[in-house]
Formats: sequence, C-alpha cells, structure tokens
Amino acid sequence: MKIHTAETLAQMFEDHFLQMRTPDDPENLYAPIRYALGEGGKRMRPTLLLLSYNLFGDNMAQALDAAAAIETFHNFTLLHDDIMDNASMRRGRPSVYAKWGENVAILSGDAMLINAYAALQRVPAAVLPQVLHAFNSMAAQVCEGQQYDMDFEQRNKVSVVDYMHMIELKTSVLLAGATTIGALLAGASDDDVRHLHRFAIELGLAFQLQDDLLDSYGDERLGKKIGGDILEGKQTYLMVTAMSNADEGQREVLRTAPHRDDWSDEQKIAAVKAVYDTLDVPHLTEQQINIRFARATAMLDALSVPAERTESLRTYAASLIGRKR
Amino acid sequence: MKIHTAETLAQMFEDHFLQMRTPDDPENLYAPIRYALGEGGKRMRPTLLLLSYNLFGDNMAQALDAAAAIETFHNFTLLHDDIMDNASMRRGRPSVYAKWGENVAILSGDAMLINAYAALQRVPAAVLPQVLHAFNSMAAQVCEGQQYDMDFEQRNKVSVVDYMHMIELKTSVLLAGATTIGALLAGASDDDVRHLHRFAIELGLAFQLQDDLLDSYGDERLGKKIGGDILEGKQTYLMVTAMSNADEGQREVLRTAPHRDDWSDEQKIAAVKAVYDTLDVPHLTEQQINIRFARATAMLDALSVPAERTESLRTYAASLIGRKR
Repeated sequence: MKIHTAETLAQMFEDHFLQMRTPDDPENLYAPIRYALGEGGKRMRPTLLLLSYNLFGDNMAQALDAAAAIETFHNFTLLHDDIMDNASMRRGRPSVYAKWGENVAILSGDAMLINAYAALQRVPAAVLPQVLHAFNSMAAQVCEGQQYDMDFEQRNKVSVVDYMHMIELKTSVLLAGATTIGALLAGASDDDVRHLHRFAIELGLAFQLQDDLLDSYGDERLGKKIGGDILEGKQTYLMVTAMSNADEGQREVLRTAPHRDDWSDEQKIAAVKAVYDTLDVPHLTEQQINIRFARATAMLDALSVPAERTESLRTYAASLIGRKR
Repeated sequence: MKIHTAETLAQMFEDHFLQMRTPDDPENLYAPIRYALGEGGKRMRPTLLLLSYNLFGDNMAQALDAAAAIETFHNFTLLHDDIMDNASMRRGRPSVYAKWGENVAILSGDAMLINAYAALQRVPAAVLPQVLHAFNSMAAQVCEGQQYDMDFEQRNKVSVVDYMHMIELKTSVLLAGATTIGALLAGASDDDVRHLHRFAIELGLAFQLQDDLLDSYGDERLGKKIGGDILEGKQTYLMVTAMSNADEGQREVLRTAPHRDDWSDEQKIAAVKAVYDTLDVPHLTEQQINIRFARATAMLDALSVPAERTESLRTYAASLIGRKR
C-alpha cells in the first residue's frame, strides 16, 4: 500500500478541487463561491481527511469528493462568520461580505453549504449513510461552537472549561469530522474511527491554543501583528486562564486595559502581557498544548495499523502546532 | 393499498414534525429554530411529498423524515429570505430576524439547513443517493431563484420569460423536489418520477401566478390587504406582462405610480390597476394559470398508476390554486 506525504495529498486535493466547476449564472451567486474557494487556503481539513483515509487504503480518488465537501463546508463557515464578525478581510484580501455585501454573502454562503452536500452525494453508496451522519453531526456542532463564541462576547466571565468546550465545537469538531470521514470511507473499524476522532479533537485543541499563544507571543519577524486578540478584547485560552488565576487588581487590568482611551495599543498589550507573565500564563498554555498533543499522538499509537503507516499523519500533526516529531 | 386524503397526511406529518426534538443549548441557536418550525405553516411541501409517495406505497412512516427535511429546508429559506428582504413579520408574528437580530438569524438558519440534511440521513439507505441528489439539486436551484429575484429588484426591465424562469426556480422547484423525493422513496419508475417532477413545476407556476393575481385582485373580505405588491414596486406576473404589452405612456405610469409622493396608497394602486385592466392583464393571468394547471394535471394522467389513486393529489392541487376539480 502506498502511503503519501501530506504535501502530496494536499496537492492532489488542490488539483481536484480547483477543477470542480460551478455554474456561471446567476453571477452574483456563484462568483463569490469561486472567489472564496480559490487558491489561498491551507487545505488542512481535506489533507487530514486524505491522510486518515490513507492509513487504511490508497485508492485516493475515492476520498477526494468527501475532502472537497469538508473544505467547502469550512469555507462556508468562514463566509458566514465574516458577516457575523463584521470582518472585512480574509486571507489578505477583502472578504466576500466586504466585496459583495451582506445579502450576497448570506445567499452564496447558503449555496456553498449546499455545494458541500452535493460533493458528498458522490461518496460510495455503501458508506454514504455513515458519512452523511458524521458530516451532519460535525456541521451542527460547528454552528453550536460559533453560537457559544458569540455568546461569550456578551459575558465578562468565561471559565476555562467553557472556553475549551467552545473551541472543541468550533475548531476541533471540524478536524474530527475530517479524520472520521476519511476513516469511514476506507472502511476502518469502529475502534479506529473512534481513535481518529479523538486524535483530531485533541489536535484541534492544541492547534487553537497554539494559535492563541502566537497571537500574543508570536514572532513579529514572521510578519504577523502581535496582540490583536488583546486589543479586540477576545476570549482566548490566555485570557480565561489569566482571569481564573488573577487577584482582583490583576483582573481589573485584564478587563479594562484593552478599552483605555488614554493608552496606545502598545501600552494596552504590554499591560495585559505583564499580567499574563506574572501569572505564568504562557508556560501554562505551552503545558496544555503539550498535554493535548501527547493525547493526540497516543490515539495514533492505539490504531490497529502498522506504526509506519501513521508516519505521514504524525509528521503533519506535529507541523500544525509547530512541533518536531 | 390505502390512499389518504391530503388532510390526513398533513395531520400525520404535523404529529411527526412537532414531536421532533432539538437540543436545548445553545439557547440562541435552537430557540429560533423551534420558533420557526412550530405550528403555523401550511405544510404544503411535506403534504405534496406524502401524496406523491402514497401514489405508489402506503408505508407512510418511511416518507415522514424526508417530508420533515423538505419542510425544514423551506423554513430555512424563509428565515434567510427575511434577513435579505428586511422583513419584520412572518405568518403574522415577528420574524426570527426581527425577534433575535441578524446574527442569530443567519446562524440558526444555517443550523436549520443542516437539520434538514439530518432528517434526510434517516431515509432508507437503498434510495439515499438518489434522494440526496434530488434534494441538493432542488436546494441549489432555490438559491439561484432567490438570487435572480434580488437581481430583478435592481433592473427596470424584466421579461415575462425571465420572470417565469425565476419563479420556477424560487417556487416550483421546491414543490418538484417534494413530489420527486416522494416518488423516489416509493421506488417509482423513472418515467413516473419525471412526470411528477413536471407536474409540480407547472403547479408551482400556477400557484405563484395565482398568488400574484390575488395580491392585486383578491377579495378584501378575506382580510388580506390588496395591492401590497404594487406599493412595494415588486416584479410580478401582472407587472411584467403589463410592461411587455404597454405603450410608452402606460409604461411610465407603471414605473412611476408606486413612487409618487403626492398620491395616497389607494391612488397608486388604482393607477396601476387601471393600466392592468386596460391591457386585460387579469384575464391574461387567469389564462396562464389555467394553461399551467391543465399541463400539471395532464402529467398526473400520464402516470402508470390507476386513475383513482391520483384523486387525493388532484383534489389537493386544485385546492392550492382555488380551483374546483
């Protein structure tokens, strides 16, 4: 059996995905879809799906439509999230919402979600009921995650447990949908499907925490602006962990610093990070990432396939959270 | 084989539909769905699905989930349409958009569309690929219809052909999805499926034209306000027909009357209807409704089932456009 690297599979997916056609008319419905699905995404979810499939089978063509379904679904969520978050930029260019307006963004997002299911309908009939079930349950949970995320913006106290639950729904579940569906397509055993589901849940949590950490402590030399989450007053693992460990004075700083009119952005960021540092939050976050990543790889150890078949997936998982294998 | 009346099937559906459960949390995601799907709809689409199924089979329980999928999908379109149309009322009470705001309406609409597919996943595996295909193609076309509808609002010239194409996509296709899926579930032949599809396309056109006609020429005693479409400057079969038959002076009246600040609503409506009457538009519309309805019933004549089995569906179709059989 041929095991492919993540790079090969990502390229295989890209070739398949970009040759998929949408109708020309109505232009205002389909042009935004072509724009949103064009090159530029990391294709993380389809890559995970194909890597998971490839653990048990190498007839990759059988998995490409489901991979397209999951990538289309992911981009649908971004499109509608951008309306809800009033986000004008996406992947370094105007969002569909900013470029075409809200009504077009709503409707072309809807059509994109339907397109995702249209890709799914080409899945082999024998596994279609299970795959459709996994996809639906994933999709519903991602919506729940987005709702909790919006709810949290209205709350001033979010516990670490609530936060982890939210990012599990909003981020991990989509990765777990990818690995689960990849395994189902390849006819994996129930146990292997379950392990790959859990693997992706833990990996997704590690990935989101890493993302949270880099937003405040990343390398400016990589060109990313540091401190965006702090300035937006976003709930992140850093913030909810700090809040749960802070004394009253520190809590006051965390709550008010981002909104102080008399401070520059640099001052706001420095004040919040000073509290984070005092409370050892970066280190606690690193620890949590390591725990989650270890749990993820333990799930790969538990799979019924020979260890060497899991190499590609392990390497890719490690790269996603900037770890060496 | 037991043939049920439309009333019996509608009640059977209602009982099934209202006992379906959604999760409690997050409240802001699921409460709007319960609100939107609660009692109050005409349940026209599930009734058509069940009537179509019942032409070939009477194990009605097998068709209830697909009927729920189609009713859920229909309500999803209303929910998102209300955002796009800025509509504050729906079925005599505040729309989800008006009651919960736009973000909740977008996201709970998304979850409702996913719920529709979740109902579909319980369809018998043997017919699932065909049913999913029919559902996806229906759903995509309904989005196209809504996009054309929005596009037409920006255009001052819409031809009769363009208008008929738009309402075929926006209205007929959903009814045709219902009859097609009902027939597929019952294992109908390809010919019968095609005939039932065409039946619903024609019925949907007759239904929409009747709706357009009643909005301007309905019976005030039925409590419906007359002339709403005229005041909103909406494209309707009456308007596009009048525009295509009008001379320059009449066209000017049709174009400007709805926007005249110096006229009362009654004056605006009277001016437009005077042009309609001069051009014989109500009569032309009636004729078109009759032609479409005749084509629809001809499709039922072409079915391979004994004529008496089609009685319930014929009676229901006639009732939808206020015709006697």
